[in-house]
Amino acid sequence: MQIARVVGTVVATQKHRAFEGAKLLLVQPLTLDDKPRGTALLAVDTLGAGVHEKVLVVMEGRAAGEALGRRLAPVDAAVVGIIDTVDVVA
Amino acid sequence: MQIARVVGTVVATQKHRAFEGAKLLLVQPLTLDDKPRGTALLAVDTLGAGVHEKVLVVMEGRAAGEALGRRLAPVDAAVVGIIDTVDVVA
Amino acid sequence: MQIARVVGTVVATQKHRAFEGAKLLLVQPLTLDDKPRGTALLAVDTLGAGVHEKVLVVMEGRAAGEALGRRLAPVDAAVVGIIDTVDVVA
Amino acid sequence: MQIARVVGTVVATQKHRAFEGAKLLLVQPLTLDDKPRGTALLAVDTLGAGVHEKVLVVMEGRAAGEALGRRLAPVDAAVVGIIDTVDVVA
Amino acid sequence: MQIARVVGTVVATQKHRAFEGAKLLLVQPLTLDDKPRGTALLAVDTLGAGVHEKVLVVMEGRAAGEALGRRLAPVDAAVVGIIDTVDVVA
Repeated sequence: MQIARVVGTVVATQKHRAFEGAKLLLVQPLTLDDKPRGTALLAVDTLGAGVHEKVLVVMEGRAAGEALGRRLAPVDAAVVGIIDTVDVVA
Repeated sequence: MQIARVVGTVVATQKHRAFEGAKLLLVQPLTLDDKPRGTALLAVDTLGAGVHEKVLVVMEGRAAGEALGRRLAPVDAAVVGIIDTVDVVA
Repeated sequence: MQIARVVGTVVATQKHRAFEGAKLLLVQPLTLDDKPRGTALLAVDTLGAGVHEKVLVVMEGRAAGEALGRRLAPVDAAVVGIIDTVDVVA
Repeated sequence: MQIARVVGTVVATQKHRAFEGAKLLLVQPLTLDDKPRGTALLAVDTLGAGVHEKVLVVMEGRAAGEALGRRLAPVDAAVVGIIDTVDVVA
Repeated sequence: MQIARVVGTVVATQKHRAFEGAKLLLVQPLTLDDKPRGTALLAVDTLGAGVHEKVLVVMEGRAAGEALGRRLAPVDAAVVGIIDTVDVVA
């Protein structure tokens, strides 16, 4: 799983039926010192995460479908946790 | 899922039978400011997306097969949404 | 799926039994202007593709196994189409 | 599988129910000469690995779910071994 | 599948039970002209491959589990062939 920050949302009126009612968050992966890392991607939200929150993102289709509670959904990333603290040992 | 733009099509007369009737779109992943990112790839179309449209692409085999409605199809990417707006929070 | 060119073959006498009779092609991923991109990889052939042909390669285990018609085969890439034309819109 | 070192932990009070009771370790992939390689990621712990230990990390959803003993868990990485020695042949 | 060379082994006394009896090989992916490419990784051995041998490595969980003959094993890479020759066409 990756640490990321919610940086936006995406609206897609025309989409696969499995996405009906699902919220799509734009999430930016972060380094351990909270710098952006690579490109932002879209993840389905399963927890009501808000913009600016630091989240735990799972990036793999089977796992993301499970997170959404729809095993057959065509998704490849999902927010599965809202991060309180990250403790890095020196 | 990734944000991409449809930039072309591919014709392959000789192909796996699961692709019969499926449309293959050439999609170019984009950065948040709409610059090309990495190399274009091929995704099966499930929504009738047209060239120049900004789309939501799922990149993973199980998910792409579900999108196509053929769980056993040998695909690894599919267009699953046509994007109206992307809202990035400052 | 990726666009690639068949650039060679590999012989492996000692191999997992699921590969018996399968042809292993060395395929080089290409950019849209037909330049090599990244490193060549091995894909199982399902269509009788020949050396120098431009092909459509699926890169994911479940999909590749389906392409081979052996769902349980330990493969992660397969040739699933022989490309006639790639149309890129300006 | 990758060689990594446990470098921290993450606390996420609000998370997918499949993570209840699971420990999330921050693991840093290593090169063969024990230098950090790429960005640290989060893996579920299945063995009681401690901070500073060198571990074997599986990075793929199906495999990670199996490691956790919860096939349907939305995870994509897991610690599956604690490494005693790595022998590299000259 | 990737071409790699076996460059070592790893010992992990404490590991997931699915690894009991399995041999873990350290394999270095190669370019077509036999130069190291990227970082070495760990693959389960299914063929009795020895150090210095050039092998065919499948990198994906489902496929690797099949190779090991344990569909539920938490593995993401496996040696599935011992390479005799690689023929690259000019």
